Amino acid sequence: MSQLSQRDLNEIYAFAVNLGKEAGKMLMDAAQLRMGEGNATREQRGHIEKESAVDLVTETDEDIEAFIKKEIAKTYPSHKFVGEETYSKGATRDYLIDDSPTWCVDPLDGTVNYIHLFPMFCVSIAFIYESKPLIGLINAPFLNQFFSSCSGRGAWLNETQALPLIRNPIPPMPENAPKGCVFSCEWGKDRRDIPDGNMQRKVESFLNMAAEIGGRQGKGGMVHGVRSLGSATLDLAYIAMGAFDIWWEGGCWEWDVAAGIAILQEAGGLITSANPPEDHATASIEKVRLGSRLYLAIRPAGPSSTESGRQGQERTVREVWRRVRNLDYSRPGT
Amino acid sequence: MSQLSQRDLNEIYAFAVNLGKEAGKMLMDAAQLRMGEGNATREQRGHIEKESAVDLVTETDEDIEAFIKKEIAKTYPSHKFVGEETYSKGATRDYLIDDSPTWCVDPLDGTVNYIHLFPMFCVSIAFIYESKPLIGLINAPFLNQFFSSCSGRGAWLNETQALPLIRNPIPPMPENAPKGCVFSCEWGKDRRDIPDGNMQRKVESFLNMAAEIGGRQGKGGMVHGVRSLGSATLDLAYIAMGAFDIWWEGGCWEWDVAAGIAILQEAGGLITSANPPEDHATASIEKVRLGSRLYLAIRPAGPSSTESGRQGQERTVREVWRRVRNLDYSRPGT
Repeated sequence: MSQLSQRDLNEIYAFAVNLGKEAGKMLMDAAQLRMGEGNATREQRGHIEKESAVDLVTETDEDIEAFIKKEIAKTYPSHKFVGEETYSKGATRDYLIDDSPTWCVDPLDGTVNYIHLFPMFCVSIAFIYESKPLIGLINAPFLNQFFSSCSGRGAWLNETQALPLIRNPIPPMPENAPKGCVFSCEWGKDRRDIPDGNMQRKVESFLNMAAEIGGRQGKGGMVHGVRSLGSATLDLAYIAMGAFDIWWEGGCWEWDVAAGIAILQEAGGLITSANPPEDHATASIEKVRLGSRLYLAIRPAGPSSTESGRQGQERTVREVWRRVRNLDYSRPGT
Repeated sequence: MSQLSQRDLNEIYAFAVNLGKEAGKMLMDAAQLRMGEGNATREQRGHIEKESAVDLVTETDEDIEAFIKKEIAKTYPSHKFVGEETYSKGATRDYLIDDSPTWCVDPLDGTVNYIHLFPMFCVSIAFIYESKPLIGLINAPFLNQFFSSCSGRGAWLNETQALPLIRNPIPPMPENAPKGCVFSCEWGKDRRDIPDGNMQRKVESFLNMAAEIGGRQGKGGMVHGVRSLGSATLDLAYIAMGAFDIWWEGGCWEWDVAAGIAILQEAGGLITSANPPEDHATASIEKVRLGSRLYLAIRPAGPSSTESGRQGQERTVREVWRRVRNLDYSRPGT
């Protein structure tokens, strides 16, 4: 493939939307089976009772990824495929995405939520070309929320509501951000209780963002609310929606964020690195590196009387950087 | 009213279900108006642009409470009414619920979420008799989730799916709880940065629940996930659903929890005080006091080979109490 036209992209988007819907349906069917609903046969139910929830979920995860991979291979045999399940079983932890047309897929994001049947779980499918996420699909079937975007064609909730939801006009970032902002963050899996470990640094950062103005040696940000959903993908979707203002996280992988980044950027959001540069007040705000495992996202913002939307977003990035610690998540090859 | 029969209760329930549906629709209509959707006239849109989101939300809050209050007064003129909006404007902070038939209503729980249009907001309506929440309705219209319960008739999601969702059989509490549990908690509004203040005690408790086993001087609980939704009412709904295992919170009020308690108890959950008694390993586990502002809820649990469901829940309560700090939320008259 030499160059993608908008028409090529439109075709791929139509294919991807269908794929996202079918994969979401598979996920919800599997959930309903665990609830004892749907068309489970006695044999299937026996199977459910014998196995642990975790084994069942792994099976669902693998089945859905295999389905998505097969459908893509049928329609676009030349495209590359990077999926969470495939990657986990592979021999390398390298970042595998280059300039070729590539699909980056998480068949089930929010696995812990899915195991417990808390509705915040989803399928996440991204199409990436020349290292840019151009198409994103996030299907959260238990919430009846289906997010989609295609470069040049906007970002959508349930194919009908343009993102961000409040858009006539899109509100500027609050004047004293992070005050007035909803801050989304995750505790994650690294729970080692070591001095200055990731968990300690995260909690210190959360506290700075939450504390009253003037508190925490001047770092108190008095955010409007602190939210933790247990799904990086849905965190990004809600940033694109404008429901969350700031998402700060380390430790997730490219398949957790690729579709969310596509949707967020198409909606007008900003995404950069979670880790503050040394000169955080003046450093240029670099584009996110997809494989960096360190993300800071700001919602779409309109202009105020004193600054452009982008200026408001950048100001917010710096105010977050001033309050958060560097996190330590490395990977080979980056 | 001398004594309520099941038939009386059934009638009140049917009335309350309709009321919950209509109030949820009002809430979603107001949200859609803010999204620039629905049937807003040019005049209404002008109104929206002139006012701040917070004023608009206060108006919605008051309108919905007034509607619910009026409908109840029409059908049950002898019943008492305690609503969040009415209470906030009243002269007293006393706990106003006694043995009379009383409706306890929060027209909009998750106000911050609603302002930002994050879907985790809801209407909450409880009917209380002889100080017991007997009927509960929680309508989260942007999630298409409507929770309802009536004493003796079960607890339901969208009137069709019995709660908890996984029930054939209902899983026992994990053997090493809180390990394996989803822990739900809120940062709340008290963000004063004072030594040993509520925010500090909360974060210390969150850290104990989250840290690896053996960490935090033996208090590490290694919960499966930490979640913060910004709605006490929906936290309780998801405990009743079995999606969350443990909810621990201080600072909310009776209208935030009354409907959730009705639904949780009908689903088989346990609710007691957030604050650990001194002899937390052996103290009797007291019934929650509705006006106490301190809550610890455990999901419905089935028996294991070694203990009853209730024993598993009580064991979990003690394991939480061992890890959390006392919170300081007082009110007059209790």
